[in-house]
Parts: sequence; structure tokens; C-alpha cells
Amino acid sequence: MTNPTACLLVIGNEVLSGRTQDLNINFLARGLGSIGIPLREVRIIPDIEETIITTLNEVRPRYDHVFTTGGIGPTHDDITSECVAKAFGVPWEAHPEAWEIMAAHYAKTAEGIAAFNPARQRMATMPRGASLIKNAISLAPGFTIGNVHVMAGVPRIMQAMFQTLAPTLEGGPPIVSLAVHSTGAAEGTIAEGLEAIQKRYPALDLGSYPYYRAGGQGVAIVAKGPSAEEAEAAIAEVTALFVSLGAEPVQGEPAPA
Amino acid sequence: MTNPTACLLVIGNEVLSGRTQDLNINFLARGLGSIGIPLREVRIIPDIEETIITTLNEVRPRYDHVFTTGGIGPTHDDITSECVAKAFGVPWEAHPEAWEIMAAHYAKTAEGIAAFNPARQRMATMPRGASLIKNAISLAPGFTIGNVHVMAGVPRIMQAMFQTLAPTLEGGPPIVSLAVHSTGAAEGTIAEGLEAIQKRYPALDLGSYPYYRAGGQGVAIVAKGPSAEEAEAAIAEVTALFVSLGAEPVQGEPAPA
Repeated sequence: MTNPTACLLVIGNEVLSGRTQDLNINFLARGLGSIGIPLREVRIIPDIEETIITTLNEVRPRYDHVFTTGGIGPTHDDITSECVAKAFGVPWEAHPEAWEIMAAHYAKTAEGIAAFNPARQRMATMPRGASLIKNAISLAPGFTIGNVHVMAGVPRIMQAMFQTLAPTLEGGPPIVSLAVHSTGAAEGTIAEGLEAIQKRYPALDLGSYPYYRAGGQGVAIVAKGPSAEEAEAAIAEVTALFVSLGAEPVQGEPAPA
Repeated sequence: MTNPTACLLVIGNEVLSGRTQDLNINFLARGLGSIGIPLREVRIIPDIEETIITTLNEVRPRYDHVFTTGGIGPTHDDITSECVAKAFGVPWEAHPEAWEIMAAHYAKTAEGIAAFNPARQRMATMPRGASLIKNAISLAPGFTIGNVHVMAGVPRIMQAMFQTLAPTLEGGPPIVSLAVHSTGAAEGTIAEGLEAIQKRYPALDLGSYPYYRAGGQGVAIVAKGPSAEEAEAAIAEVTALFVSLGAEPVQGEPAPA
């Protein structure tokens, strides 16, 4: 069985301006890898209607799943939901269940049902046919339509939505990742032998990553793929390669800086 | 004068797999904003030749500048440089100056010129017509060809390369960013008034960002644009809006979590 593929659209001027350090990409990259739906592409795009629609329609036929983060709040810069409706060519309308959840909540607040104002009503307005992605943290749900999963940009809300969503997605075999590293080793020395190993394991992705630590610099080699046996065999060969070059191999990734 | 635009391609399986938390996007977003070349799009793509070439040729006519990070080391998974040559349809060949710098360095090492092996020679091999982006940290330079600037993926090396590169780029007016925030305020309450302010300042980008801190949650409003006067006027209006809603405004962004 091959792995389904994923693309992530990070929608938000605040990431492109540098105002916000994105944390969602890394979380979803790991989360999707662990359920066997590897992330193949990420695009960070601004809150511009035409850009969102065009990008969505460019990527959704190319990948099994498209995830979006950002732009589903109540303010004028939150336009993801309307854009998804336009991309799919369906009406953008009150979602009965989302509307009921939110109306019931605001009716119980001090301000009463008036607090469920037009801005907040937008968060219960979705493309026709959307199914909700509820979550334990925020009242307003995300939603899925077709192969597009629309989630919040705030990391803890996005993470809660992904926790609801992940068990509903059918993944392939989880991607196994094994590593070996050696402080003092240099990429330029190991490169030739490493390439030969990569050629013997074409189904694996063998990556070479230099690191710089107070304790010294070195190289980490990571083998990733659906077969644990192959990853183990390749890492054993890389370990032997380090030894043959006079470098001391240590299994796993180096400790964080 | 309008601002030139930038697109960033982050090239590397390690970011897509979640092995590596990217830090280059945020650094470049801020750095490019400060020299008036706002970042309009980011794509994170894998180390696959066809993908890199296609993506480069898709984005380089659309933006004034394209920056790439990653894939210029000596190992088999470092294929950015060759792909840039193929995207431009020019030969990929020894760059005389880069070659000389690297050969001179390795000739002085214990192993002698033999250390300037084929793997390391690849780092001195570039698209014909490339001009070097030297840096204070790594021997191997990045390069510019046409409107494409090819940089390292290791953050401290990329940052050193950007420091060399930035003064050579002609930017527009720097993007001014001003903020006001209010703990206790809710996006759903401020949304209507905020949208009216955004409409009065169409040249500004007015963003609304909820925050969650130990000291309470609230909303930060950020005004960005080339005119400091407009940003100041808009933030003054948002400040008054907070007051009118009974929320206490504080100038600037909230303190980090």
C-alpha cells in the first residue's frame, strides 16, 4: 500500500511579515508522518481572496489531502472559509449544527444572544456540504469539505482540531525514521560513501544534516521510509561508514542545542 | 514608489518531515520587510529535481526576487544548485572564484588538496553566470543568478549570507508595523469596528490576532504598511475603539508568552 499525500496551506499575512513564528507546520509534519500521510508541500500565502482560491484549486487535485491553517476567526482578515466555498463553487451559508452550538453558547453569556453578532455568525457560516471538525478548546469548529480540511491558526486550537480529525483519516504505513550521528565528522568526507548507500536503498530517504553544538560540530544521517527493516539496514551501513572514516558513531539524533 | 516583492523556497525533506523546525522563514520575513522587499509567498518543497525546477520556473517570473534556502551542501541530497542551472537552462560548471577559494582552503588542511574531493567540488560548481554570496561563517558561498538568490539551509550560515546580500538589493520604503493590544478584549466584539477602520485605510494591512497568556487572553491589532503616518492614525482609531468597548488598550504587542 502506498501512502496518501498531504499539502498544507498556511494562510496569514502575519507569518509572511514575520510577526508570527509559525509552529503549525512542524506539528502537522510530524503528526501527518505518524499517521502515514506524509506532508509533500507547504505554501504560506497572504489573506488575499484570489490567491487563496487559486492556490486551493491548484493543490487540491494534486494531493490526497489539503490542510489549511488560519483565517477562520470573526474579523475582516479571516476570509479562508468564504474562499474555500468559492474554490469549490458552492454556497457559503449558515451551517445548522455549528450555528446551533454557537447560538446556544452565547445565549448563556451575560450579553445574551446579542453576543452572537454578525462577526461571530461568520464563524458558523461554511461551504455547503462541510462537515465539522469540533475541538475541545474553541467553540468555533473547523470543517472538512472534499479533501480540504480547514483548521484554526492558533496553535493550541489547531492541535485540538487535528486530534479530532486524525483518527478519521485513512493513512498508509507510518513513516519510520532512524538516525545516527557523529561529532567531528564532516559532510564532505562522508558524502561519497553515503551516496552509495542511498543508491542501495532507493525506497528510503537518506538525509544528511550538519549540526553545531557547544560540544562540537558533526553530521547526523537520517533514514526515513515505510520499512523499518530497510531503515535499520541503511543506518547500520552508515554506522559502519562512520567507523571506516575514523569517526565515532552514536545512534539517534544529537541532543538539542 | 512601490515595493519590490519576494518569494522564498525552502528546499528540504527535513522541514516537510518535521525533523527540522524551520527558522529561516521568520528571519527572512523580518529581514526582507525591513529593507522594503515584503515576502509574499513561501513554498516548502522536497529535494526532488523536477519539483525544484518546476517550482523555480513558476515563481521567478511572478516576483521581483526569489530566495532559496537549503540543498547546497556536498551530499547526494543537496541538489538545489544543479536544479537552478537546469531551471535557467545554463551549464552547471566550476565557478572559478568559488573553486579557487575552496581549493586554497583545503590545500592548507592536514589532508591537503585531496580533501577538496568531488563532493566538496560540487559546492564550487554553479550555474554559469552566477555571482557569489560570500559569508563570514562558511567557506562555501551562496550565489545569485538572475533574480534568484541561493542560500544555505543552516540558519547561521543563511543569516550570514543574507547580511552580505541585503545591502546589494534595492528595496522600497520599509514596511512600518504598529500595534495595540487589550487583555480581556474579544475579536468577536471588536470585529465590526475594526472592519470599518480597515476600509478607511485601504493601503494598510490591519491584522487581528488573539493571544493567550498566563496573565489573560486578549486581542492584538497590528497595522502594517509603507506609511508611518497612516499606521499611526489607524492605530489611534483602534485604540479609541477598544476604549469605546470598555477594553483597556495598551500600545505595542503583548509581551511574549
